[in-house]
Amino acid sequence: MTTRRGAIETPVFMPVGTAGTVKGIRFEELEADDLDARIILGNTYHLWLRPGIEVIKACGGLHKFIGWPRAMLTDSGGFQVWSLGALRKISEAGTEFRSHVDGSLCFLSPEISMEVQAVLGAEIAMAFDECAPGAATFEETRRSMELTLRWAKRSREAFERLQNSRASERGNSPTPGSPAGQPGWGGAVREGSDADETSALPARQALFGIVQGASHCELRRESLDRTVEIGFDGYAIGGLSVGEEKPVMLEVIEEIAPLMPPDRPRYLMGVGTPEDLIEGVARGVDMFDCVLPTRNGRNGQAFTSRGKVNIKNARYAVDQGPLDEACSCSVCRRHSRAYIRHLYQSEEMLGGILLTHHNLAFFLDTMRRVRQAIRSGQFAKFRREYTEQLSSGLG
Amino acid sequence: MTTRRGAIETPVFMPVGTAGTVKGIRFEELEADDLDARIILGNTYHLWLRPGIEVIKACGGLHKFIGWPRAMLTDSGGFQVWSLGALRKISEAGTEFRSHVDGSLCFLSPEISMEVQAVLGAEIAMAFDECAPGAATFEETRRSMELTLRWAKRSREAFERLQNSRASERGNSPTPGSPAGQPGWGGAVREGSDADETSALPARQALFGIVQGASHCELRRESLDRTVEIGFDGYAIGGLSVGEEKPVMLEVIEEIAPLMPPDRPRYLMGVGTPEDLIEGVARGVDMFDCVLPTRNGRNGQAFTSRGKVNIKNARYAVDQGPLDEACSCSVCRRHSRAYIRHLYQSEEMLGGILLTHHNLAFFLDTMRRVRQAIRSGQFAKFRREYTEQLSSGLG
Repeated sequence: MTTRRGAIETPVFMPVGTAGTVKGIRFEELEADDLDARIILGNTYHLWLRPGIEVIKACGGLHKFIGWPRAMLTDSGGFQVWSLGALRKISEAGTEFRSHVDGSLCFLSPEISMEVQAVLGAEIAMAFDECAPGAATFEETRRSMELTLRWAKRSREAFERLQNSRASERGNSPTPGSPAGQPGWGGAVREGSDADETSALPARQALFGIVQGASHCELRRESLDRTVEIGFDGYAIGGLSVGEEKPVMLEVIEEIAPLMPPDRPRYLMGVGTPEDLIEGVARGVDMFDCVLPTRNGRNGQAFTSRGKVNIKNARYAVDQGPLDEACSCSVCRRHSRAYIRHLYQSEEMLGGILLTHHNLAFFLDTMRRVRQAIRSGQFAKFRREYTEQLSSGLG
Repeated sequence: MTTRRGAIETPVFMPVGTAGTVKGIRFEELEADDLDARIILGNTYHLWLRPGIEVIKACGGLHKFIGWPRAMLTDSGGFQVWSLGALRKISEAGTEFRSHVDGSLCFLSPEISMEVQAVLGAEIAMAFDECAPGAATFEETRRSMELTLRWAKRSREAFERLQNSRASERGNSPTPGSPAGQPGWGGAVREGSDADETSALPARQALFGIVQGASHCELRRESLDRTVEIGFDGYAIGGLSVGEEKPVMLEVIEEIAPLMPPDRPRYLMGVGTPEDLIEGVARGVDMFDCVLPTRNGRNGQAFTSRGKVNIKNARYAVDQGPLDEACSCSVCRRHSRAYIRHLYQSEEMLGGILLTHHNLAFFLDTMRRVRQAIRSGQFAKFRREYTEQLSSGLG
């Protein structure tokens, strides 16, 4: 196992803001010290279907539309339409599917995804990919990987055309040199946003390529090599956490992450639990996104430094302690387990709001501590202690 | 119409926190400058059924249980069980009803309501009353009013026993003089809370009596006289906004408010729209509570200085203006009508959260402006301008 770090010393977790909102959380809270999210994720599929790009374009792009000046990443919609299962049909050209909003027939391709993502205008866009199921055979996976590579090339080309045309519209010449020469990414995430006051859109978006290959490490390596050959501003490992066993996931990360370009961000898509974040970082991953803190929060589950808490449990009925004794988020400073349990039992919105807030605080604080540990050369120690405490049972 | 003011120069609006939460709003927001709610309302009926007084007692009373140090008022449960209609049976002893939580048979009486409210421990408790429908005949209303008066007396007696027993438990002697001698109310509302650091419960609660009599002013006057005779720390007008016509409501307030003791707060229960607040203040009312800003907010309706906005309307699809140009709340400073409409269309929690916040800001700011206008002797002018603008149509 490598302890070599990726392109940056600052691994980040991105809260998921599917439809232009991190569910149940106000942006002021995302910006507050106890969360301080530097970058959030938006879903191209959802935003494209509703409110639609015409609306978002008329409102000046996604940042301005939702009122979030910090960095954003948009996925390509590839995974979302793939997840529709029987409702979609994949061809060389792209993916045909039925909208979950109104049942209408829609079509998403690398070119369309790039167009939509250009309108959304996040600092980071993702290539349009296909995902093979965790249990896919070698041959199935190869076919899927080859399609993803052809789509990656088309994504790259469409993206370049759009960026250049946007630059001309602005009266700027495009950034000279290779497309990956001046990624807008680093500054965006580290400083919050590189958007200036007069435009909500970054001067130039970054585009990340996605490595596929399911659990077949040979295919993963080939996918990585050929994706890097196309050339992107950053690289993501896709198609994990989609049904495979956890050791398989860790093995793939361990095999692939060290081979990824050391000067580019490495993004592990859709992962994961607090343990997964630590193990991902240990293997060289820089960026994560996951719905666990928000979705599980709405369902009554708190992530704490001593493991998970199901707040609906009767044992918390008169528990006056905070969700996590070790947490200093605004929820833990003010509210008891007993109160939050009552809110759940009463189906009050505030229950999901408070648990989501705490969970995001826990995930984001974990990453802050990871960054501190890396900076002070104590990551191995931090990893051991954090993991031991997580499995120590409830406080 | 009188312009004489009530006991205080500071009319207040109380957001409704039925089950120990103002739906969808964090307490930090209620405390922030743009809302700055000094007092919120809790519902005895809901809290008694869930989580139950044993839980709230074990957690140190309602303030401590929910994490709200500022003032609170609890209703008596009388109106709530009356609202159950066919599900309840009213007798001299009290009201028998089926719980909306688990269908079990419950019984609420003046004595039980006082016991529950003593455990909840709000600064202000309410007498247990019965409410006659807006269209009740004179005879029906008289029977109901007489019952409310007998219940008021029993409420007062039970309340005194409980306060004295609480005072002995604390090792304090009860406040000397008449029960109404030292109401905890004024300071609580004006300064936020009189609870000290070591106990979440106020040293002594205040008890308000409730004037009933439907739309029969003769009965209302009699109800007021005989309620004052029993003696309370403040007086409420109950049984309005329950189906009667608006002019009838205003007539009753105009008739009754000026007759209420000038040195005691006058509370108009369950009222109302922004117009109703202004008209209530003009007639001498000091305190209001209403679910409109929260409930209508969750349903997509914004109250603005130029009238109501139904955010679901397609005309707002790309409207980049705030809900209310004249509003400086945190929602209007950050988010557009287009975005909030999108949240509603997508059934995102944040839609209800943002509209509720704005609506509460609008109601609370209205009352702040009312207080300023009264202080500067400009209330008549303010009332005219505010009302004209409200009916001017959308900006």
